[in-house]
Amino acid sequence: MALDGRIEAAMTAAIQLAQSGAAPPRLGAALPYAVFPGGARIRPTILMSVALACGDDSPRLTDAAAAALELIHCASLVHDDLPAFDNADIRRGKATVHRAFDEPLAVLAGDSLIVLAFEVLARAAAEAGTGAPERALRLVSHLAMRTGMPFGICAGQGWESEGQVNLGAYHRAKTGALFMAATQMGAIAAGQDAEPWEELGARIGEAFQVADDLKDALMAPEDMGKPAGQDQMHGRPSAVAELGVAGAVEHLKAILGGAIASIPSCRGEAMLARMVRAYAEKMTPARLTAKG
Amino acid sequence: MALDGRIEAAMTAAIQLAQSGAAPPRLGAALPYAVFPGGARIRPTILMSVALACGDDSPRLTDAAAAALELIHCASLVHDDLPAFDNADIRRGKATVHRAFDEPLAVLAGDSLIVLAFEVLARAAAEAGTGAPERALRLVSHLAMRTGMPFGICAGQGWESEGQVNLGAYHRAKTGALFMAATQMGAIAAGQDAEPWEELGARIGEAFQVADDLKDALMAPEDMGKPAGQDQMHGRPSAVAELGVAGAVEHLKAILGGAIASIPSCRGEAMLARMVRAYAEKMTPARLTAKG
Repeated sequence: MALDGRIEAAMTAAIQLAQSGAAPPRLGAALPYAVFPGGARIRPTILMSVALACGDDSPRLTDAAAAALELIHCASLVHDDLPAFDNADIRRGKATVHRAFDEPLAVLAGDSLIVLAFEVLARAAAEAGTGAPERALRLVSHLAMRTGMPFGICAGQGWESEGQVNLGAYHRAKTGALFMAATQMGAIAAGQDAEPWEELGARIGEAFQVADDLKDALMAPEDMGKPAGQDQMHGRPSAVAELGVAGAVEHLKAILGGAIASIPSCRGEAMLARMVRAYAEKMTPARLTAKG
Repeated sequence: MALDGRIEAAMTAAIQLAQSGAAPPRLGAALPYAVFPGGARIRPTILMSVALACGDDSPRLTDAAAAALELIHCASLVHDDLPAFDNADIRRGKATVHRAFDEPLAVLAGDSLIVLAFEVLARAAAEAGTGAPERALRLVSHLAMRTGMPFGICAGQGWESEGQVNLGAYHRAKTGALFMAATQMGAIAAGQDAEPWEELGARIGEAFQVADDLKDALMAPEDMGKPAGQDQMHGRPSAVAELGVAGAVEHLKAILGGAIASIPSCRGEAMLARMVRAYAEKMTPARLTAKG
């Protein structure tokens, strides 16, 4: 995808901010380890796509917003992999941060990446010219809301420690929050109102949750780059457990149709619809596409 | 101290932001548990004192900055107490967050408090009027620098995972960073230049580090509200190990003298000097004052 280079450049600039000769070297090494090579960079790709669809009149802010969002996502992976949570050994095809370094450094790497996300936004504002401080503060507010309590990914992960789970709130926070951040921060970075972009993010997030449930239930670990069958093993709620495989696939298609219908009117509307359709194809596991 | 009520009100308002009916209840309960009742609230007290000494012309921002700084401090305590770090059972006289709740919730509570700190700053800007966005962004930048990598408390904690420790960088980041944040964010909140306020924060931080080393070496656990002898047990560098008890006490006095001398010229200069002297008395363990 054409945005890849722009995203990686923004991520590289962000990580460089956190490194200097005076930094503790192992923690300094754990940060790029947690961030490079990336996964699909889906969230910053969506963010940049929405910003471009809205005119992208402040590309410095768009880059910062994309990097900040991906930093939060990477931080959440580092912490979710910890022994107290998923106790995962492998992530993106290599040892998880706490396995490659140690557990204290994994906690600190996650903390540092969260902090860096907000620093990147604040610094970009200082360089991006008129109107940038107001937009940057809206980006800080929005990213915080989608990351922390009560509605962000921290809240989503927190639901997994509850006896009684509010399933709607759980999915919306655990997976949906950063997709809503992607569409809405893209709009904010380009000076637009965030509200009309919430539904697109929410629906893409729902689709990814269902696709992830399908992958977890069906795919071999070597295809995923991480262990499969985690949902069942940890007794986590899953669309496959609720609807069966065929039902989950139908549900996924319906959600993506709704996502396309929800795209606000803007100059890049058709481009965004193509993006969602491309994700839809990628999201459906190949074995299921073959089955129909 | 007269600022107590103002600080607690700001902390209460901050924590309420993170709680709603839709939040996971246990994580929702872990946040106030980590923050109330507070310790001495030294960092926000210094921050507000500096802001007042500089005129405190935007009290809404000052309150937010004080709360944000203390939220970061509380988050660092929650994470530092985790089994992978100090494995502490007791903090501020009650069970640590991972003992009272569990380890996943302690990781998430720390993460959520970090995020909340930046959210509080961004929200305050929206309510504080002209010039507030620029100041709020400087506060976000500054707090991030003093919290994350390469110079913040995360870096400070990271030094404890290194074989070879840069002692100056370690102390400056581990303890000094949030005291520098206290003086400099107080100045920023009141619309002043931050740079002249760095030395005061650095010296107060040094003093607290030496005082903490003395307490850790000398006091009984029941007087501290947490286990004593941790530095020796974990083989951590300490002023007492380097200078002996009498040497460390002399060093403490010299640092505090330097702190008072470094206070920038401002309308509240005398008040700040009194504040530092009052901390100096509190900081020296009673047994040592009695000895001379």
